[in-house]
Formats: sequence, structure tokens, C-alpha cells
Amino acid sequence: MSGDVQELRVDLGDRAYPIYIGTGLIGEPAYLRKHIQGTQVLVVTNTTVAPLYLAPVVESLAGYEVQAVELPDGERYKTVEVWSEIFTRLLEARFGRRCTVIALGGGVVGDMAGFAAACYQRGVRFIQIPTTLLSQVDSSVGGKTGVNHPLGKNMVGAFYQPQCVIADTGSLATLDDRQLAAGIAEVIKYGLIDDPDFFTWLEQNMQRLKARDGAALAYAIERSCADKARVVAADEREAGRRALLNLGHTFGHAIETATGYGCWLHGEAVAAGLCMAARLSLRLGWLEETQARRIEELIQRAGLPVKPPQGMRPERFLELMAVDKKVLDGRLRLVLLKGLGQAVVTEEFDLQVLEKVLDEYGAS
Amino acid sequence: MSGDVQELRVDLGDRAYPIYIGTGLIGEPAYLRKHIQGTQVLVVTNTTVAPLYLAPVVESLAGYEVQAVELPDGERYKTVEVWSEIFTRLLEARFGRRCTVIALGGGVVGDMAGFAAACYQRGVRFIQIPTTLLSQVDSSVGGKTGVNHPLGKNMVGAFYQPQCVIADTGSLATLDDRQLAAGIAEVIKYGLIDDPDFFTWLEQNMQRLKARDGAALAYAIERSCADKARVVAADEREAGRRALLNLGHTFGHAIETATGYGCWLHGEAVAAGLCMAARLSLRLGWLEETQARRIEELIQRAGLPVKPPQGMRPERFLELMAVDKKVLDGRLRLVLLKGLGQAVVTEEFDLQVLEKVLDEYGAS
Repeated sequence: MSGDVQELRVDLGDRAYPIYIGTGLIGEPAYLRKHIQGTQVLVVTNTTVAPLYLAPVVESLAGYEVQAVELPDGERYKTVEVWSEIFTRLLEARFGRRCTVIALGGGVVGDMAGFAAACYQRGVRFIQIPTTLLSQVDSSVGGKTGVNHPLGKNMVGAFYQPQCVIADTGSLATLDDRQLAAGIAEVIKYGLIDDPDFFTWLEQNMQRLKARDGAALAYAIERSCADKARVVAADEREAGRRALLNLGHTFGHAIETATGYGCWLHGEAVAAGLCMAARLSLRLGWLEETQARRIEELIQRAGLPVKPPQGMRPERFLELMAVDKKVLDGRLRLVLLKGLGQAVVTEEFDLQVLEKVLDEYGAS
Repeated sequence: MSGDVQELRVDLGDRAYPIYIGTGLIGEPAYLRKHIQGTQVLVVTNTTVAPLYLAPVVESLAGYEVQAVELPDGERYKTVEVWSEIFTRLLEARFGRRCTVIALGGGVVGDMAGFAAACYQRGVRFIQIPTTLLSQVDSSVGGKTGVNHPLGKNMVGAFYQPQCVIADTGSLATLDDRQLAAGIAEVIKYGLIDDPDFFTWLEQNMQRLKARDGAALAYAIERSCADKARVVAADEREAGRRALLNLGHTFGHAIETATGYGCWLHGEAVAAGLCMAARLSLRLGWLEETQARRIEELIQRAGLPVKPPQGMRPERFLELMAVDKKVLDGRLRLVLLKGLGQAVVTEEFDLQVLEKVLDEYGAS
């Protein structure tokens, strides 16, 4: 079934693991079985993905005691309550601490299944099969798992590394255009953080990605994962450098919370957040006008929003950004740009300039 | 205020931390302030402990931004829902990831506050001030945190180490007799696992402990913590030897679940569980009649139950023990005794003998 398979190693010492990238990997038993311990496997998926891919995954697990749980689809179900249902299924099935939890789906499924694996009996094995572009380039590296709280996104969670990640580019064929674009937002982010050549490549290849060209997608996934893996390996628990990965996210999370989870896709909010970070960097005199314009243009060509939702007031932004995890002892830290491919984590910026930028958007 | 203070180090590499044991430590700012980072502190306590000790703790934190949350008291509130309220308070207070969570109370408060600290923004600092004998000798070493699920005890949680533990023996003066006895059950357990001299000391000093003799209590706490710390340091994540600490607990958890959490105290269920483990070991020919009798006698002198609740059927025991975390791929593992101070983790026992022992209790 499967053609050319790339294997990328995320280097985290005794928590190191491989990412397999290729077409037709779902349903291919070899990769999955290599990383399962024991005999009990729970597949966590959602009601959208299950009809497409649950059967081949279960078939590839012949011989194991397999259970499946289908969560409702969408960010608004990423709650403590829905997460808790995963434990109910594990306990009803009497799964022990040598069981393996497989996440089959997008970022929401991965975050919840991973966090459940981290906490079930204080930690069982976990495997990711991300089926969206966003989860293939984002959630599959870094071990961030968790759920939302009504007062803030991703506020409850754990750092928990999978045994392996299986990214089947074939699964992107069934993704709708909006979801594909949302994934491209995170891909662009990696170029902006510290990979200017990749940013240029994206400018040249955006049409191929939008057209779902398999080779272009595989290249973008691999390069994004490699970029992210490098940052994560240097700072697994986000004490410093890893915070760079939040480029666009402090603005983005505020948008998601303000509009209600699930209204804007995560990637859409991040896209607008990237443009806002660029605009603020421009107004601070850290970025050139042409650079800011290239960012907005690329994001626009990806079919993504370049500004926050109309009517979102500056005060609301500031209020929501204040509960963001990047706040240290009450001081707001942001990831901003000192060039294309030159992101910095900083609290050294003029708050009035931030307010002015938020006003500009509020008025536009 | 404070007299002689013992400092015991739990040796877990870069997660090593001290346990301070002494009288009058609550309200003493020095120990607490040494281990707080940042400016924001949440004290998690319960409605029973708050009137006794919350004020001195808050006073000793002058200069910090202090919040407190009072949980309802009792094992039956150790749920995902109540745990979730801790996050609500942290988020309402806009606490960042450099905040510190302090657990002030018994095991339930410590388990929930520790698990909240483990998960809030994927991990913030945590300090334990255990106020019961049970939590001073048990929860303060080992980093096990978590909540119960309706289908099983402690099934959702994390391994998470505190920055320090402050065990004030003065707080045991306000403990009722039943709670004190429950703590002694865990103390006896440490003697049984691998410290026969301590078991003998307990036989000689049970009256002093029951009379709350300060020196005897401090010695028992220190020795229990040292015994536990040795086991935990060798096996932090319970891959092997650490499972010894579950002596009496597989039976005990079944009793707690069957009677409904909070009906029997954890220590009471463990006490009965220790006697059941001894009886099974006796019937397997691993323990002598006189040894089994010494165990039952000591537990009885502590004022603790030596058998499971009347009317608890053998089938119910087997059903509940089957979901215990000690089950590996469907095979029941138990901690049993091959002598006083010689516990073993094993699945090598005759299930029929277990059933016979359960029948004996069921009929008695």
C-alpha cells in the first residue's frame, strides 16, 4: 500500500520517538504494532473521522483487544467532561496500565487522547495518527496535550510524548479546504520563526499546497516537523526558546476565546494572530513594511484571515491576553518578529504601541 | 515557635526535595518562602482544615498575592468536577505559570491540589503541608497525585513531585482518634514491607502513638517517610519495586469502592487489607501463624478493623480487584508477605486460595 516513507526522529533523550510520514500509512500494521506494548488498545477518534479511518486502523490491530471511543467533533468539546468519558471507556473495558491509547483524528482528538493517556493510571502508552494537516505539523511534535477551560484555552494539560506519530498524507485528501488552509497557517509559522528559506519556498509553492500536491505536502510536513522538533528538543518544557512556537498564538487564543471555541478554526485564529504580530513588530520598528506585506500576502493566498473578527474590541483583546500562559508574574510576553525567520520572545515592548495596533484593527 | 526540626531529603535527582518534620512549622514563614517562586500563591484546603490553619499560613505569606480555595471535606469529593474548581480559581485570579499551589490538609487535598498543580498550564510549583498523620507519612513522599473515577479509585492522575513537604506534628493534636488510627495503618505498612525493626518498635510504642506523644509521632513519621523515600527513589514511576507500597491496598481499594468512598477511611480499608494480605500469605504457606497473629494484634491495638465489612461478597472483591492498577494484561498481581518485613509483588499465587480466603471472610 504505502509508498515512500520518511522517518523523522524527535530527539528527547529517553522520550525520543519517530514520526513516519507517507501515503497509505493508515491501515499499514507494521508501524503501529511496533510501538504497542501489552494487548489492550483504545482508539480515540471522533464522529467525523471514524467512518473514514476507524475500520482500517482496527483491522490493522487484529490480535489485540481493541476498543474505540468516538468523541463529538470540534474544539468546543475539548472539555474536562468529554475527556473524562475516555476514562469511563478505559475502565469499563478494564484496561490496565500496560494498555495503549491511539489518537486517530485532528488536534482536538490528539490533545484529549494524549492527556487521557498521560493521566490514566498516571500514564499509559500513547500513539498519534493525526489526520489533518494542522495536527500533522503541530500536535505531532512537542508532547503538548490538554483540554480547554471555560476561562481559557489549553489551561489544563500535560507534557506527554507519544511512542510514535504516523502521519498519512493520504488522509489530507478528505480534508475540506478550510481545514487544509488552517493547517497551512502553522506551516507558515515555522518559516517565520527561524526558517526564512522555508518561507520563500512557501511563497513559491503555495499553489501546489492548495492543490494538495502529495510531494509538496509531504515536504511541508517534514520540514515543519523538523523545524518544530529542533525547537522542542532544546527546551521540552517551554522554559525558554520553545515559547517561540507560540508566534501568533497569544492573539489567536484571544480570538478563539472571544468568538467561542470552534467558531474560528485554531489555524484561522493563528493566521490572523501572525498578521497581528507582524503588524505590531512593524509598528515597533522591528520589521520592514515589505516584510510585513509579504507575510500578509502569503497568508491571504493560503485562503486565511489576515485580521481579527470585526467588532472585537481592543479592551477584550487585552483582557484575554492577560490570562495567557505567556504572562509571567503579571507581565505580558509576546512572540514578535525582528525579521522574516527571526522570531523573539519578549516583554520589552511598548504597551501603548500594542494598544494602538489593536485600535487600528478595531477601527478597520 | 518551632522546636527541633528534622530535614529528610527525598532523593529523586533533579526532582529531589526536602521534608521538614517538627512542631509549630505551620505559620513559620521560613520553610514556605524558601520554596516559592514568583509572586502568586494559591492555598488549596478544605472546610475542616481552613478554620484551624488557613489564617497562619496566609499570614506567613505576607507580601505574596495569595488566594485560597476551600474544597468540601472527604474522599467522596475527590472527583474531576471538584478538581476542576481549582482551575476556575486559578484562572479567575489570572495566575500565570510561575504561580505556586500549596496543599493544606489531608491526603484528599494533597492529591487534588498536586494533580491540579501538575496540570495547570501543564505544570506549576507545588508545596505540601499535610495536616493528618496519614498524609504526613504517605502522600508527602512519592509524588502520586490524582482523583477518583466512579469506576475506580485514583484512576486519573499524575506523578508530580512537590518543591518541599512541611509536616507539622502539632497539627496532629486536632486530629480525631479515627483519623489518627487511619494514619497508623500506613505506618504499620512500612514496618511490614521491609523494616521489621520498625514493626517491633511499633509493637512496643503503640500506646505512645495512640496517646499522641510528640516524640513518638515524630519518630514514626520520619522513619515511615525514610522507608518510603528509599523505595520511591529506586523506582519513581512504579515500574517494579515501588508496587510494594501497595501492600494492603488492592484489598483496601476494593473495600473503599464497594462501601462508597468516604464511608471507610482510606487507612481503615488499608488496615483490613493488610490483615487480608497476611491471611492469604498464611494460607499460601508463606507466613507463619504467629506472624499473621502479630500483625492482626498490632492493627487491633491501633484501633483499626482487621477484616472487611460484613456482607461484602467474594465475587464483589474479585470484580473490583480486577480493575486495580496492579493488574497486568489481565493477570492479578498482589503484594503479599513472605515474612514480617518481607513483602513481595507477585502474580505467582493460587487464585483458588485467594477465593477460599475471601470465602472465609464472607462467612465470618
